[in-house]
Amino acid sequence: MTRLVMKFGGTSMADPERILHAARLVQSEVEAGRKVAVVVSAMAGVTNQMVAWTDIIGPAAQGLPSSDDEYDVVVTSGEQVTTGLMAMALRSLGVPARSWLSWQAGIITDGVHGKAKVVAIEADDMAASIDSGVVAVIPGFQGVTRQGRLTALGRGGSDTSATAVAAALDCPCDIYTDVDGVFTTDPRLNVHARMLPRISYEEMLELASLGAKVLHSRSVGLAMCHRTPLRVLNSRLKPGEQHGKGTLVCHEDEILEQRIVSGVTLSADESRITLMGLPEDPTTLGRIFTLLGEAELNVDMIVQSPARMEGRGNLLFTVGRRDADKAVRLLAAEPLLKDAEINKDDGVAKVSIVGAGMRSHADVAGTLFRALADKGVPVQAVATSEIKISVLVDGAWGELAARALHTAFELDA
Amino acid sequence: MTRLVMKFGGTSMADPERILHAARLVQSEVEAGRKVAVVVSAMAGVTNQMVAWTDIIGPAAQGLPSSDDEYDVVVTSGEQVTTGLMAMALRSLGVPARSWLSWQAGIITDGVHGKAKVVAIEADDMAASIDSGVVAVIPGFQGVTRQGRLTALGRGGSDTSATAVAAALDCPCDIYTDVDGVFTTDPRLNVHARMLPRISYEEMLELASLGAKVLHSRSVGLAMCHRTPLRVLNSRLKPGEQHGKGTLVCHEDEILEQRIVSGVTLSADESRITLMGLPEDPTTLGRIFTLLGEAELNVDMIVQSPARMEGRGNLLFTVGRRDADKAVRLLAAEPLLKDAEINKDDGVAKVSIVGAGMRSHADVAGTLFRALADKGVPVQAVATSEIKISVLVDGAWGELAARALHTAFELDA
Repeated sequence: MTRLVMKFGGTSMADPERILHAARLVQSEVEAGRKVAVVVSAMAGVTNQMVAWTDIIGPAAQGLPSSDDEYDVVVTSGEQVTTGLMAMALRSLGVPARSWLSWQAGIITDGVHGKAKVVAIEADDMAASIDSGVVAVIPGFQGVTRQGRLTALGRGGSDTSATAVAAALDCPCDIYTDVDGVFTTDPRLNVHARMLPRISYEEMLELASLGAKVLHSRSVGLAMCHRTPLRVLNSRLKPGEQHGKGTLVCHEDEILEQRIVSGVTLSADESRITLMGLPEDPTTLGRIFTLLGEAELNVDMIVQSPARMEGRGNLLFTVGRRDADKAVRLLAAEPLLKDAEINKDDGVAKVSIVGAGMRSHADVAGTLFRALADKGVPVQAVATSEIKISVLVDGAWGELAARALHTAFELDA
Repeated sequence: MTRLVMKFGGTSMADPERILHAARLVQSEVEAGRKVAVVVSAMAGVTNQMVAWTDIIGPAAQGLPSSDDEYDVVVTSGEQVTTGLMAMALRSLGVPARSWLSWQAGIITDGVHGKAKVVAIEADDMAASIDSGVVAVIPGFQGVTRQGRLTALGRGGSDTSATAVAAALDCPCDIYTDVDGVFTTDPRLNVHARMLPRISYEEMLELASLGAKVLHSRSVGLAMCHRTPLRVLNSRLKPGEQHGKGTLVCHEDEILEQRIVSGVTLSADESRITLMGLPEDPTTLGRIFTLLGEAELNVDMIVQSPARMEGRGNLLFTVGRRDADKAVRLLAAEPLLKDAEINKDDGVAKVSIVGAGMRSHADVAGTLFRALADKGVPVQAVATSEIKISVLVDGAWGELAARALHTAFELDA
């Protein structure tokens, strides 16, 4: 018995014809003997339309609970439509299928509406149905709490749904999308970008966290934890031609020819927040990041710099652009920071190199800073991990910096 | 404690502004001390769009179960959107509210997908929430089977949902729609149509069954069984101005000034099917209508006429236009009817008069046939009930016949 999860994104579900095409890809796997669960996104554009409606209606009045729970009821309905349509499309091709909505499939999440996390998949019924030869169709992005309220898994949540289902079913997960696979850098920004046949979970995790939109980082993290083989491939492939195509995301030791650097990313979705004149108390940073963490704001680069003023420190960090104003409001309201100067800058870009080979190669940082210096790009901040170096630069320099690094690390096709 | 169910149709939910307007109507009832459950339809046009998608995808291949269950998953999702948006709209106005999807509210139906019937409302949790002052928002049209599959209640199902919820909550039900109330006849076809301040359940049931689109007959039947006061009123009314407006559907003895005839309807949604040369066996009609009934086809007028040929009979009946081809196919495949001639005619109209006063007035039929004869309208078939007389006429004569009867029974404004 070979189970397989296949996930289709919004452009692959854009209209009934595209859905029928995706169903034929599923059919070819079924005919090859696989027991398939299909996870679908909403039709492209539909979720944005719903978000626009919720924006017009506006937030809950003061004194009432937030409307995040109802927002989830609205925005997860697009996946219900494509789930039913995909099940119908499969049956029209003669493939037995049925839909399993989140509350039927047992996709249990926490109650953080708008960006809920999967806490359990209680899918015994669904697994039995799949193994009996009935394709399961599951709405991505949608979960349900133990209290029976619908939740949305956040943007990119359909990848997470698919990976979680694959982990629960102990099988590989094929992510069908509108690109051929994972590239060394964004092919729209750099004609020299190359597709990678394989990439390690660790590298993909860094790439996804850094703005490579092909896979959501939570989905990669989940796959890594459960050793779920993930494959990214193009939904425009013809049925039967998908085998061996795309990029396989797998364990490092399954990749024979290891590169020093596998990818270069550019993210312009973040804002830089600087705090000047902080009290140099050992508890200060703990207080600041607890405050932001409790508000579910994800902080990325953090640089603490020496203060010029006696007994006061400076701090720089980045947060998602969408969260930046909220972060500033929270900090401005914190009594501890009443004497600090708080600034926000949206005009920044984060350029990163990612590669498992960094662990065993010296002078990666040297190559990076030389390449940026050659182009005269000033660096505002640096953040490193074992397999990643990110630099924050002025937004205007972002694309140039990314191209320079792609060349410097010999990734150009 | 005065509970109230308020139901809003698709045009009242057409966009966020209309939804906010409807929410203000709910707010005015809450401020008047009522504990409210709101039942909403999908945005106007959305369900039709979804039906069109399912048509493109097509039916299940031979040998597989029908796709009716998945069709329901698709077409009931529009109500999920408006349910969440309405809950958000209420909260934005400062009115505590939450959504209860069919499977959360306990709207249990049978498993006849596409036209499921409500078999139970297990709404204790929801009722407790309403009584605590939180408005419940419920998707119309959507139910759930005991096995946990979504069902659609069929066209007009949102009225049925609302009435069933009102019956379970033991309270009145206000149906907000795009007309001012129930009229003596279709105001678009006859400028002399008058709005009725009250109408009896029995009359409304006949009118709804006969094509008056303002209320679905199943909803009226449910309301009559449970003595639920139904009110039809215009969703364009201003908040606070809705009291005493519209048409109240109530028990006959609550209507002081009883009319002989309350309404005249015209239905062009039916087809006439004639069977000639039937075996005159006492079991023939039973076999025919069992066959149609098992296929869930609703038959309306039935006329059995004397045969000219020895030992063979003729039969005429009407079915919904959508079901007519299916009915013909079923009959043609029945061995019993192999020698019968089966014909279908879509060019017919059914004109009916309805009035509880018929019970106590003689010569209603006489007035009807005189009025039609005066205009030279030939009658193809007649069907009567205690409070209704329907005649089947050539489609071209339908509007003329309806106007003539409206005048003859002194309904003209």
